[in-house]
Amino acid sequence: MKFTVIGGGAVGLLLASYLVQQGDVTIVVRRAAQQETLQNGLTRICGDEQTTYRVTVTTAIPNDDTQHIFICTKAYALVEVIEQLQHVAYRTVSGCQNGLAHMELLRTLRNSNACVVEFGAFKKDEATVVHTGIGRIVIGSLTGGKSPDVDSSDALPVVYSEHIERIVWRKALLNCFINPLTAIMQVRNGDIIQNESLRAIVMQLFDELNEAFPVQMEDVSIQDIIALCDKTAANYSSMCVDVRDGRQTEIDEIVGAVMMATTHRLPTLRMLYLQIKSMQ
Amino acid sequence: MKFTVIGGGAVGLLLASYLVQQGDVTIVVRRAAQQETLQNGLTRICGDEQTTYRVTVTTAIPNDDTQHIFICTKAYALVEVIEQLQHVAYRTVSGCQNGLAHMELLRTLRNSNACVVEFGAFKKDEATVVHTGIGRIVIGSLTGGKSPDVDSSDALPVVYSEHIERIVWRKALLNCFINPLTAIMQVRNGDIIQNESLRAIVMQLFDELNEAFPVQMEDVSIQDIIALCDKTAANYSSMCVDVRDGRQTEIDEIVGAVMMATTHRLPTLRMLYLQIKSMQ
Repeated sequence: MKFTVIGGGAVGLLLASYLVQQGDVTIVVRRAAQQETLQNGLTRICGDEQTTYRVTVTTAIPNDDTQHIFICTKAYALVEVIEQLQHVAYRTVSGCQNGLAHMELLRTLRNSNACVVEFGAFKKDEATVVHTGIGRIVIGSLTGGKSPDVDSSDALPVVYSEHIERIVWRKALLNCFINPLTAIMQVRNGDIIQNESLRAIVMQLFDELNEAFPVQMEDVSIQDIIALCDKTAANYSSMCVDVRDGRQTEIDEIVGAVMMATTHRLPTLRMLYLQIKSMQ
Repeated sequence: MKFTVIGGGAVGLLLASYLVQQGDVTIVVRRAAQQETLQNGLTRICGDEQTTYRVTVTTAIPNDDTQHIFICTKAYALVEVIEQLQHVAYRTVSGCQNGLAHMELLRTLRNSNACVVEFGAFKKDEATVVHTGIGRIVIGSLTGGKSPDVDSSDALPVVYSEHIERIVWRKALLNCFINPLTAIMQVRNGDIIQNESLRAIVMQLFDELNEAFPVQMEDVSIQDIIALCDKTAANYSSMCVDVRDGRQTEIDEIVGAVMMATTHRLPTLRMLYLQIKSMQ
């Protein structure tokens, strides 16, 4: 098996560190500095365990019709990657982005899949990833074509789903509750449930999204939101960190895409959207 | 004429510095430190001009049925002052608070007036106030009784209005547009019009308040809001400064009072309210 992982962020590095046990792995990165560092090995830290793996590192997507490609870039970088893939042979391609926008983009490619990442990871340095939370990766075909054959393990459970769209929607909606509010107020995930006023905003948003998305919200209960905030209470959301560090956020791909999917007015969600946009 | 000014903040000190030219002025302050400093004189800076006036300073409200009392405390401190006034003789009493809540409270006193302050001032130190923006003080009776006879001047125009409730409502609504948003985003007044996303929030709030308050919003056009933001573009709103310095804000007296005055849902205003509340 040949795997290609595009993107050297936390998700890409963690996934690569598990795939390397099942076949040859090539990581495609943008910056020469990361390429150089990764060529000395990719290190995964999980609890007390620290393991270093040999990987191939390039700055160009390999052209090989036996490979399974995983795109692990941020959602807003996907357009450019898909453009490059028009000229590349591959067996399957799978996108691990947040939000909804990537589903439409990936659907333009044959044998494309969407992945929903439920594990936790953060990049310690250019070649070291810490596996912070055990969680599944859910993979599902968007085109009815082939899916990558990845083995499941206790440390990284892999689940294949025939309802990937529902699962992608569910994660996007959950992100709408947690990401923008934590980013605007610069608080941890747990705070938006523990603080009485922020919890009232979550409830107001819950009512609003329930009205606008009765079908998709069947998979998102208020208990789900509370459980997720509790489980990740001490974490800062990715959007919170992006805002703090002055980086581009995924607000358009997550919140913008949800707003575009309805004709309802969504004043609460729109305000969260505009507040994040005002900071960029 | 005898005037008593309760409160040694920017509004109280500025008003006292003008009243001292029309009669005896007593300033009532809470802290002994400010009392001591003010006993050496009250200084007003306006442009290049700097003048120091002698005033009487106490920590207790004088009991004298010839006096005109001006209450220049924050809105949330009004309950306590009104409690003390039950046992005090006076000719007229006038409240200079933000928001709407003070109107109901003042109405429980005889010969009570509401004042809307349109001038700009900031307290440089315990005994020095800077007159930063020439503007009117509008005074109107809440009980149909007597009003204080204060002379108008070019530097401090005094206007007596028979529609004080409309003018108080207008200022409270204008504050709803500027204060909470600048405080949450920690930006200057001009930014909420100059930044495209924040301007979109202002517009969303404008539509929402227009629906909920068709009568009161007749006095507030989008041009009024833009003009006020332009005129005070470089200023930080009082709520912005209060949040930055970790002080209590007037969110309940301004935004909370507007929310209480309608059965409409006001999701945009409610979210601004809750975001401020979450920070206190």
